Amino acid sequence: MSNTPLKGAAVIGQSGGPSAVINASAYGVIKTALESEYITKVYGMHHGIKGMLNDELLIMDEEDPKELERLLYTPSSALGSCRYKIADPDVDDTDYKRILEIFKKYDIRYFFYNGGNDSMDTCAKVSRYMAKAGWECRVMGVPKTIDNDLFGTDHCPGFSSAAKYIATSIMEVNRDAHVYDTGMVTIIECMGRHAGWLTAAAALASAKGEGPDFIYLPEVDFDLDKFLADVSKCYKETGNCIAVVSEGIHYADGSFVSEAKTAATDGFGHAQLGGLAAMLANIVKERTGAKVRGIELSLLQRCAAHCASGNDIKESFMSGETAVKEALNGVTGKMVGFECDRTNGYVCKAKLFDLDSVANYEKKVPVEWINAEGNNVKQAFVDYCLPLIQGETPMVKEDGLPRFCKLKKVFAK
Amino acid sequence: MSNTPLKGAAVIGQSGGPSAVINASAYGVIKTALESEYITKVYGMHHGIKGMLNDELLIMDEEDPKELERLLYTPSSALGSCRYKIADPDVDDTDYKRILEIFKKYDIRYFFYNGGNDSMDTCAKVSRYMAKAGWECRVMGVPKTIDNDLFGTDHCPGFSSAAKYIATSIMEVNRDAHVYDTGMVTIIECMGRHAGWLTAAAALASAKGEGPDFIYLPEVDFDLDKFLADVSKCYKETGNCIAVVSEGIHYADGSFVSEAKTAATDGFGHAQLGGLAAMLANIVKERTGAKVRGIELSLLQRCAAHCASGNDIKESFMSGETAVKEALNGVTGKMVGFECDRTNGYVCKAKLFDLDSVANYEKKVPVEWINAEGNNVKQAFVDYCLPLIQGETPMVKEDGLPRFCKLKKVFAK
Repeated sequence: MSNTPLKGAAVIGQSGGPSAVINASAYGVIKTALESEYITKVYGMHHGIKGMLNDELLIMDEEDPKELERLLYTPSSALGSCRYKIADPDVDDTDYKRILEIFKKYDIRYFFYNGGNDSMDTCAKVSRYMAKAGWECRVMGVPKTIDNDLFGTDHCPGFSSAAKYIATSIMEVNRDAHVYDTGMVTIIECMGRHAGWLTAAAALASAKGEGPDFIYLPEVDFDLDKFLADVSKCYKETGNCIAVVSEGIHYADGSFVSEAKTAATDGFGHAQLGGLAAMLANIVKERTGAKVRGIELSLLQRCAAHCASGNDIKESFMSGETAVKEALNGVTGKMVGFECDRTNGYVCKAKLFDLDSVANYEKKVPVEWINAEGNNVKQAFVDYCLPLIQGETPMVKEDGLPRFCKLKKVFAK
Repeated sequence: MSNTPLKGAAVIGQSGGPSAVINASAYGVIKTALESEYITKVYGMHHGIKGMLNDELLIMDEEDPKELERLLYTPSSALGSCRYKIADPDVDDTDYKRILEIFKKYDIRYFFYNGGNDSMDTCAKVSRYMAKAGWECRVMGVPKTIDNDLFGTDHCPGFSSAAKYIATSIMEVNRDAHVYDTGMVTIIECMGRHAGWLTAAAALASAKGEGPDFIYLPEVDFDLDKFLADVSKCYKETGNCIAVVSEGIHYADGSFVSEAKTAATDGFGHAQLGGLAAMLANIVKERTGAKVRGIELSLLQRCAAHCASGNDIKESFMSGETAVKEALNGVTGKMVGFECDRTNGYVCKAKLFDLDSVANYEKKVPVEWINAEGNNVKQAFVDYCLPLIQGETPMVKEDGLPRFCKLKKVFAK
């Protein structure tokens, strides 16, 4: 491949579950691409790769630059997302032929894809196919996942903001849960099906003296009896207990606690219909007689742009910006992650990772950061995570409420 | 009663469910009382009236004034709360005799009580008893309730911040819920057992074009079939639907939807263990086959100090400050509520209400502010509520997280 900038159009898509800052990354791509003299047109895929396949491309050049700037603090994927898993081109190349057709139609020479594991996989496959097909282009992955489970990078854009929201909300709930002298057990459920990063973020609240007593991650097999013993002991001794659990906690046999038939545990003999927090709250209530409340942070934790991390917004933008700059320099087949130095303050630099090395791996919370009892995380996690949540959102409000970006959404014909 | 200031000590207590700004009210009382030349000492009741009965009073004079200032953005009741309902003195005056004993012991001449309906009732009873017992003192109610159901006052401190959080969070969830092209139904549950004010606050998000399709308040009898028809139609036509429900919605016979045996509705034949949102989500899922998510805002909505309304903080402080100033002027037996003028901008002034007229009444959302179909509120509610959520919190953060007030809690002996 040449390392002189290619002349042609760029396209950006967003995929997977949204976050508070995925649009900050997209804005990094869009703004930098719009400013490049080599990039002739900037398109946005409507609902990710499905927008490519359906020939539904939004013309970003038609948008008001001032409005686009609001993407920095607009949650969820402004271009629309999808959960479409593209086939292996060696098995079925229908989608790729179609993508190549669209590339040719719009003279697309730059492909940026903004998402998690699956999106990096899509990126890698598109990159390989285009090389094979002889269509010269640059394919770059721009990471996003609140789950923080992408391989290689120090952390993932989106995680830090969710972590900040979780720690902030738990500090507030902690105050609320201690307000009476009559005691209460509170079970809080965070996202994270396979990796416990988000749940671990509750430890930031504990580091400030306003956090949970226990944290249960999916990295450790869940033991219901141990959990009940932990909570009961704490409640007995202090009159209060807050436990934070990951939605992905599972028993030793691998079955999710949230999906377990609870006949053995709550005596009702049917699957619980509420979430994990509600289910565990009921079990604790039965066993201890305590006043118990289950709280599921649900979608709130991934879209709370009003409580986003300033660092996360800056880094997300940087990731998108770097993707364009590196692509213009001739780089392709890479994801723009981060390399961070915490020895003397906190320095975060963009770093390129091979898409193939990132796709389809899941980075978990290191076992050495989890305590021996498996019911909390250690200071090492706090040292890792605290720098990520620094800084506040530049969100502009109107009438006391967020003023999110409103795209015109002009479709290319 | 004399209208020259009484010389003596003041005591303040907090009661009932906490809010994001109840401490701003308490700070208004504490700061103003500490600055008064007539008030010799300022005490805080540890866990409300129970702290009086147990002779557990905190000496506010011992606290660092700079630390006390953090009460402006510290959620939950910093002095501790209780849910103790004091007896009618004509039936059982044991508690009142004890309170008088404590009043005499500490020479308490000013009694401020910070809470909702029940707290105003406590205030009224204490006021009457002390007058009868011939103990000269000034008794003032400082209102607080996110439920906004206190009679007389334009609105209640605490409501506005919860409303701002609800509207903000729903705007964010609205973005998240529309991210895929595959559609989703989202059911969001807000607090408010008997009054729908908090749930109605979702309409502020709708006023910005980023809110729910339907709002169901406890002021209207809930009709499950109508609800299902509303949601199904909206989902069918737009591919999406967001409905916000009050925890207190009930059927025509008065039974709470949340407590109903769901045999007739979901076919499982047992009481649901999750919250109302989870239960309705399951019913919608069964009937429509749509992807459905239930979200309960739970405690988050009443303790989200990070998203508090600047106006609410100022007004809460003003309510506490006014209570002390008026008491010093000889006023007693009053609650400091608000009178607001929205004709030309928004002006909020403190106004005194008879404690007796406030206690034990519940103010509901006016029927004329609810639409004919009973599934939304009208512009009149938005006009009423929008001014209340203006302005941001002055919250100081440390390490990117809230730095709440930490009281020394020095007990009087």
